[in-house]
This record gives sequence, C-alpha cells and structure tokens, in this order.
Amino acid sequence: MSTPALDRTAVTDAPILDVLAERWSTRIFDATATIDEEALASALEAARWAPTAANSQPWRLIVTRRGTEAHASVLDSLMGFNSAWAGDAAVLMVFVAETTRDDQPMPWALYDTGQAAAHFTVQAHANGLSTHQMGGFDRDAIATAFALGAEFTPISVMAVGELGDIRTAPAELQQRENAPRERRPIAETLLVNN
Amino acid sequence: MSTPALDRTAVTDAPILDVLAERWSTRIFDATATIDEEALASALEAARWAPTAANSQPWRLIVTRRGTEAHASVLDSLMGFNSAWAGDAAVLMVFVAETTRDDQPMPWALYDTGQAAAHFTVQAHANGLSTHQMGGFDRDAIATAFALGAEFTPISVMAVGELGDIRTAPAELQQRENAPRERRPIAETLLVNN
Repeated sequence: MSTPALDRTAVTDAPILDVLAERWSTRIFDATATIDEEALASALEAARWAPTAANSQPWRLIVTRRGTEAHASVLDSLMGFNSAWAGDAAVLMVFVAETTRDDQPMPWALYDTGQAAAHFTVQAHANGLSTHQMGGFDRDAIATAFALGAEFTPISVMAVGELGDIRTAPAELQQRENAPRERRPIAETLLVNN
Repeated sequence: MSTPALDRTAVTDAPILDVLAERWSTRIFDATATIDEEALASALEAARWAPTAANSQPWRLIVTRRGTEAHASVLDSLMGFNSAWAGDAAVLMVFVAETTRDDQPMPWALYDTGQAAAHFTVQAHANGLSTHQMGGFDRDAIATAFALGAEFTPISVMAVGELGDIRTAPAELQQRENAPRERRPIAETLLVNN
C-alpha cells in the first residue's frame, strides 16, 4: 500500500489508548483492496461483546462487500457527498436497531446500537481497517431493499476498508482529510461535576 | 486491594483486544475507594473523542462522587436491584443525550451518546476502573434534580469505581458475578452477509 503516513492522531487533554486517539473517520478508501476477512471478523466479534441493557443485544447488521448487489443497494441509499466516496470502501455495513421486541419498545436500542458500532470501530482500527459512519442515507430504501421487519430501524451506514492514497484523491477529499480534528472542551460537556 | 483474581474475560469466536474482552459490568464496587481522578479524566477524554454525526457531539454528562448530594440524587433515582449495589461506586454518572438543538430533533443523539459511553468504558477498564451501565432509573427525577433543559434526555446511569471484593459481597451479587457471560452468535446478528 502506497499510503503516506498521515498522522490524524487526536491531540488529547489527558492520555487515552492509542487505538482511541488514532481512530478517525477517513473518506479516502482504497478502491482496489478487498476486505481482510479476519480483521472484519474480529471487529464483528468486538461489537458482539459490547454491553447492552439487560444483555438484550437490540441491534443487527447488514454487511455488504464491494461488487455485490447488496453493496450497490447500500451505496444507492447514501445522500449527498457520502455517495461520492463511500463506494470505494470494500465493505458497507448498516447498523440496525431493534426498536421493538414482541411489540414493546426497546428504549435503549439506539444507544446500544451506538455502543456496538463504537466497539466495531475500535477493533477495526486496531486491525488496520478504517471506518466512517454516516447518518445521511435513505432509511426507507434500506428497509425495502433488505426486506427489514417493522421491528428494525436502520440507524447508520458504516464504510469499512483500507485507507486509500490521499495524494491521488480528489481535492475536496484531501482538504477534508487534512482539516483539524476538533472536539469541544470536556468542561463544556460536564453539566454537573461534583 | 484484596480482590481475588476473578476472570471474567469473554470467550470469543475471533481475537479481540484484551481491553474489550476483559471489560464486563460488575455489580461489586469497593465502597471505601475514592475515584482515581487521573483515570477518570482519561476515560472522559476517551468519550470526548468518540465519533458523532457531523461531529455534532450531542451528549452531555453528569458526574457525581460518593459523599456528595449529587451522588445521593443519582442513587435515589435508581430502580429495583440497581439501588442495592450501585451506591458503593465512587462515581455515579448520567449520560445525557441532546435530543433537540435549536428546536430541531437530533436523530443520532441516542446512538452517539452510546458511542461516547462505550469509549468511556473501554478507557476506564484500561485504567483499572470498573463500570456498569443502568437503564433502570427515573429520568424525570434526574431532570428535576439537576434542572436539565428540555433539550436534554438522561439515557443511562453508569457506576464507575474500583472492583470490590467478591468474597465479602452479598450472596446475590456473588451469584450474578459468577454467571456465565453470554452473547448470541454473530451469525444471528447478521441480517445480510454478502
């Protein structure tokens, strides 16, 4: 892989694990690389072990590989700029929340689906895979394409694959890739700190 | 610390990071230990760097330490069996989703709050802190006690602290602590795998 060393490590105010500091959401994927199936299996296993309310595990996954009709369907569902770059990813996944079970609401389905996605991204990055989550997609199109039951709500699409070469990427992608990584100060997140 | 080596490592079907395999949700906290403030700061920083939709960071935190009125308020809000053990935790936190911003819905607020919580738990465990998330609490009581604005919805309470001694814990806690760790097979989570 000819990717230059692009340091996107977060500048943190307290020490955190390298894998957490170094994880970031690229938009430049290697359009020629196929998925490392062992790395993918590990990331799926990490998601599997995420905590959920009363161990209810109220989430499911759609996993599609580039070249399949399923991958094309997920790509078609993407909105706006996402559709310009996400097709390069070897895998497009949909994180699906089980928002009802036995006709009862599952109040932590979205929250727990987010936890599973976070576990996935952490393990993926540890295994050399890049990820980028997207909210901008047509939920109804996904539900229809994959015949999802009414209990399931697609929440996010995640692009997964090898990092591409920033030097040959379109200018807008290069610009976004080089933008500073920013978060609001933790003090502004703490409503109460007693 | 006199805690015996209690191996709660997940038995996984594919290799995952030790910190993910070894993280689990204890109910036995050391009621005499104060919080390791450096470890807490690192876990908060890990949460800060979690990914969110368009970097909107739609989540906030309430952090309370044992011995404060705020900690007592969070403990009072817990329902059922949670209230029997969570008070031992040096810190009780509330993860709060920003479900509206400028009167517009934030569709990924719960999902992203879950991602932030997951990052927190991973870093906390790496730093030797145990965590346990709870959904069973009175949201209205929390909103009232901490005068939360209408844009904020408390989603989960997290107990954080040092692992306690299972040998001196009540029988029900010992039993739960020794229960097998289980997840459904990943094949059942994959609605599509193409």
